[in-house]
Amino acid sequence: MDNVCSSDLSNLTPKEYRALVRRGDWTGSSMEACHGWALADMAIVPKEYAFDFFLFCQRNKELAPLIDVTDPGSPQPMRVAPDADVRTDLPRYQVFIDGKLVEEPINILDYWRDDLVTFLTGCSLAFDWALQANNVSYRSLGAFVSNIACVPAGAFRGNLVVSVRLFASPHDAIKAIQITSRYVLAHGAPVYMGEPKNIGIKDLGHADRFSVPGGDTAPPRPGEVALYWPVGGATFRDIARQAKIPLMIVDYPRSGLVTDLRSEEMTVF
Amino acid sequence: MDNVCSSDLSNLTPKEYRALVRRGDWTGSSMEACHGWALADMAIVPKEYAFDFFLFCQRNKELAPLIDVTDPGSPQPMRVAPDADVRTDLPRYQVFIDGKLVEEPINILDYWRDDLVTFLTGCSLAFDWALQANNVSYRSLGAFVSNIACVPAGAFRGNLVVSVRLFASPHDAIKAIQITSRYVLAHGAPVYMGEPKNIGIKDLGHADRFSVPGGDTAPPRPGEVALYWPVGGATFRDIARQAKIPLMIVDYPRSGLVTDLRSEEMTVF
Repeated sequence: MDNVCSSDLSNLTPKEYRALVRRGDWTGSSMEACHGWALADMAIVPKEYAFDFFLFCQRNKELAPLIDVTDPGSPQPMRVAPDADVRTDLPRYQVFIDGKLVEEPINILDYWRDDLVTFLTGCSLAFDWALQANNVSYRSLGAFVSNIACVPAGAFRGNLVVSVRLFASPHDAIKAIQITSRYVLAHGAPVYMGEPKNIGIKDLGHADRFSVPGGDTAPPRPGEVALYWPVGGATFRDIARQAKIPLMIVDYPRSGLVTDLRSEEMTVF
Repeated sequence: MDNVCSSDLSNLTPKEYRALVRRGDWTGSSMEACHGWALADMAIVPKEYAFDFFLFCQRNKELAPLIDVTDPGSPQPMRVAPDADVRTDLPRYQVFIDGKLVEEPINILDYWRDDLVTFLTGCSLAFDWALQANNVSYRSLGAFVSNIACVPAGAFRGNLVVSVRLFASPHDAIKAIQITSRYVLAHGAPVYMGEPKNIGIKDLGHADRFSVPGGDTAPPRPGEVALYWPVGGATFRDIARQAKIPLMIVDYPRSGLVTDLRSEEMTVF
């Protein structure tokens, strides 16, 4: 049992939160931590596969807007959190070996190697805060596997996992598109709008992946407009399963790295 | 002597222009060709150095906003001009071996290898057209070597070469910052504003590099505001000299690849 309460976390600085996590004193969600600071999804691959994964991110920017890429072997994300350590500062990890999920450890010190390259990508939490600050009325439904294929690169391929937000009115949906378009490093504008079946989602009443804490599971109501954004971590985990490379490490669901960037900086390319 | 007149070029489609260049019928500047279509600077390195150069571009986005990266060995930029061939479709190239400029050929077929990776980056021509379309009053002075250091990656390091534009009034300069901020894939907002000496430029009356055709060489007049943007190709050539890798190929000055993207698409991350 974690010995801190999640409501304490929102006022911590990123440095304080990462220290808490590094000591093993918090292994829960990062989503409520450090309000106003940018959270990042993470994928780690050996140098041998790093060029291909870099290509994959470049070709699927809406999924994987890169905010930092480390030198091989360095656990320090110099540009977004120079004093952080990607091996210890996330609450929990998923380790894939040959495409199989083998462990969900709270640090990856035992897996670390001198040839590992870490990719950090912006997370939609930044624009969720902006939507709320702008009085946009919506509810979040969770994550679904779409049939939208990513552009492949090397061994990396798969379909987008998307998060669905239901907006109360067309006016709210239009405002949401305007606002999120600015957040280019937090997935930016939605990848799709409208009927879920057109992108391979059968039932918005049952998320394929995590449901959203404090969120809603009721299917769309008349007048609501559905907008869809890519989910970094969830898609990375599917890609790790399909790529079957010898080692790939991804953040556990809802367990990204809190960076030293303000969430507003996700608007600056 | 080229057997076409540059004034004929502006109305060609990118495909027509690239065919002309591919045949060797135009070896001059690409700057006047295909008005409204996005021009790209280019750097080619062997796969062995491609991860490091990718890192370099990621860490210096304002210099090298990537619009396409090819698979190793492929001369086709699939995302920005699928029927183009980067070996033949630029008017002229510069070939660096161990950091030395060895040739300025009109194609690079003799240098091509199965391990070469091509990086294409957006060019400021896109926002020049936007500034003109928005009635912004300015003149271009050419390119200067600044003392602004790029963030290094592997062997790739160097200072930014910047282009200088003098705006007639503060109002014009403000409009220019607003407009160019949208063109994130064409270098975006300026990297500097104000006195040239603060970034290591001694004399705006004499460009270190190319002067601008139809441009001006007169030093700043009272009331003019100087804004500075990175120059992709010129900086890449300096970096090639310093990196001293076995092979690096860059577009010859003013000889980028005309892509199938509209210049307005340089606003969409």
